[in-house]
Amino acid sequence: MNIELINTGSELLLGRVLNTHQQWICRQLADRGYLVSRQVTVADIGPDIQQVVREALSRADLVITTGGLGPTSDDLTRELIAGLLGKKLHEDAAVLANVENFFAARKRPVPAKTRVQALVPDGATVLHNRQGTAPGLAIEVRPSPFREGGAASWLILLPGPPRELLPMFREQVMPFIQEKLPLENAFVSRTLKTTGLGESVVEEGIAGPLKPLTDAGLEIGYCARAGEVDLRLAACGAGAGDRVNEAERLVRGLLGRHIFGEDDDLLETVIVRLLTERKQTLALAESCTGGYLANRITNVPGASAVFLAGLVTYSNEAKQKFLGVSAQTLSQHGAVSDAAAREMAEGARRQTGADIALSVTGIAGPAGGTPDKPVGSVFIALATGGRTFVLNPLNRYDRETFKYVTSQQALELLRRTLLKL
Amino acid sequence: MNIELINTGSELLLGRVLNTHQQWICRQLADRGYLVSRQVTVADIGPDIQQVVREALSRADLVITTGGLGPTSDDLTRELIAGLLGKKLHEDAAVLANVENFFAARKRPVPAKTRVQALVPDGATVLHNRQGTAPGLAIEVRPSPFREGGAASWLILLPGPPRELLPMFREQVMPFIQEKLPLENAFVSRTLKTTGLGESVVEEGIAGPLKPLTDAGLEIGYCARAGEVDLRLAACGAGAGDRVNEAERLVRGLLGRHIFGEDDDLLETVIVRLLTERKQTLALAESCTGGYLANRITNVPGASAVFLAGLVTYSNEAKQKFLGVSAQTLSQHGAVSDAAAREMAEGARRQTGADIALSVTGIAGPAGGTPDKPVGSVFIALATGGRTFVLNPLNRYDRETFKYVTSQQALELLRRTLLKL
Repeated sequence: MNIELINTGSELLLGRVLNTHQQWICRQLADRGYLVSRQVTVADIGPDIQQVVREALSRADLVITTGGLGPTSDDLTRELIAGLLGKKLHEDAAVLANVENFFAARKRPVPAKTRVQALVPDGATVLHNRQGTAPGLAIEVRPSPFREGGAASWLILLPGPPRELLPMFREQVMPFIQEKLPLENAFVSRTLKTTGLGESVVEEGIAGPLKPLTDAGLEIGYCARAGEVDLRLAACGAGAGDRVNEAERLVRGLLGRHIFGEDDDLLETVIVRLLTERKQTLALAESCTGGYLANRITNVPGASAVFLAGLVTYSNEAKQKFLGVSAQTLSQHGAVSDAAAREMAEGARRQTGADIALSVTGIAGPAGGTPDKPVGSVFIALATGGRTFVLNPLNRYDRETFKYVTSQQALELLRRTLLKL
Repeated sequence: MNIELINTGSELLLGRVLNTHQQWICRQLADRGYLVSRQVTVADIGPDIQQVVREALSRADLVITTGGLGPTSDDLTRELIAGLLGKKLHEDAAVLANVENFFAARKRPVPAKTRVQALVPDGATVLHNRQGTAPGLAIEVRPSPFREGGAASWLILLPGPPRELLPMFREQVMPFIQEKLPLENAFVSRTLKTTGLGESVVEEGIAGPLKPLTDAGLEIGYCARAGEVDLRLAACGAGAGDRVNEAERLVRGLLGRHIFGEDDDLLETVIVRLLTERKQTLALAESCTGGYLANRITNVPGASAVFLAGLVTYSNEAKQKFLGVSAQTLSQHGAVSDAAAREMAEGARRQTGADIALSVTGIAGPAGGTPDKPVGSVFIALATGGRTFVLNPLNRYDRETFKYVTSQQALELLRRTLLKL
């Protein structure tokens, strides 16, 4: 099945607004086995919108558009599509009632221009908008004048505002698609998330052993960023579930402890889950990550049950005062050293009474490097009361990527310690 | 001038990754008067990429692609484009040296597959990648077999990882475009950044007074998100600079102290700049923002000159131990209270010796609210040694937006205090 997505809006092409709809809609569809083959963004310019929709209808079984259904002069989609399909618009009584109720509930008069939102192309299915006034519209183009042989297409027009689009898509559009365009084959997908390995290492490690499965139709996708490589296993048709399960078993055997989670897992959610299960508490002592580690942990709802405190000791004085790092260590080895990281973690554990403490000290850059300790030098220490572990990676990235990669390494050290890996 | 952007990557159409490049590149171009007329996302499928590039080259003077230049088997762009343009690939010695240096600096062997990144289509201009191994490539298609009359197009291929793409675009691609495809008319744009006002308030406040200028061709664009409204003023042709300057003068008169910066300014960069100029030092005491404030401040290069420490005191015990918040305050007023915020700020200032301390305590949610103090309740305090100021906003958002909006309010309180606004 061929599916295309069209996002309209001049603000998108001016770079004023991030197109979050694209990811969200594609993900909703992909998780149910519907793959979008092309996405196009186009400005609120009549001929451009018509051309893009016409091209998509010449290729696709399903075309979804977002935006351009509002009441203002740059909302062009409804009329343009009716014109393109040679359909008349009529005023729909149920939609008009929804518009009137919307304003009545807010004790405001109906603006004259808003009435245009009750216009519906003949034959269209109305998708009710419970968060706003512009309804979604689903139109079957049958026979299609745009495709060879006249094969039918569905065209679904959706409003742009996220608070209107998201519930409409979940509640009405997805079931509508599954009813009108059922998949021929069962579909299964699973994402395994890894850290500590580069993309090419992951691929080289698994491509060979998985070849019999990929030859049999298993798809493997890689999504790499600094500090994380996600691996998506997908299959369709008879035995799809078995093939994905078998692939997962092989991948887990090959990559083992490098896999920290599945699907929507983040390393910080895994950590908070593991600590909660074990009833263990955590403290953090950060220098070069500057609060980023604490921020990640506290993004997780429920973190307060396991996270006691994070001490962002940027100055040497703060390292001494709040963590008890010794003046001698700082003068002999420097703040970026094995000894300082060790004393920071042990000090954070002692001062907060946490079961486990994690510390990070390093040189984020762009300035501050020396020949001995170049920009990117990092020491990560983990104190559990027994032996204190120290890692010493070299993370040469821009400042924000440096923080992210360093926090991945620190959280991964903690995860492996908790799981005794 | 007709410009199209093509983002390749199956992960984008699977909805695994948010396409932030689209907004960022469109914004970079628009700020310099170059408007993208169409953006397309396509999967890592050879024929699809070739078809999309071919279509774009049939319409556009400039086509930019992102992604598909890595070392793995789904990185197809380099070879596909060479095939489409009928160009051979040769190994470029300088690029190969960059690949080898990249791995040598990280003390890792060069993976065999990575060598493919040194392959360059004949005649292409190499854009050096100082953050990674895949170079960007700029190719002039002249005469173009894809356009009527053979009019020339430029095709620029960029690597997908943001840490590689962003500096390459800023430092090399933008100047390259301005040199090879100069604008016919002068173009001037300026963005003024505000916080503490809603979008409709900003728009209603300035639309009337600026009408003579908008009638004369000045464009005003609004970009609103929680905690910030950006205002973009743009004009082209003769007198463009004067019109934008006059508009800025009017807007500054109307919005005054709500404007915290221009163009690429962030509130945290403004804060670090103001503190540095005044030779003042800062400490933070955070509860509900969980390190996010410290993270924002330490994202700014040079923050270490003014930022001493951030104490993320999530537990009540940590608030007492590290900040000296009294047990009585916590039991009588609770950790989310005017009194606790005040003691946190004053304690952070006293314990660190900083000139100024900022504290935040509140209920981020989703759980933890009470009828008295619902989810979203926040107290922000600023201690300078004289009077301590306290704000008490209600920020009802999801957890991460809550952190962002609260940190905006805290930093804005600090900015106005530093500027005596």
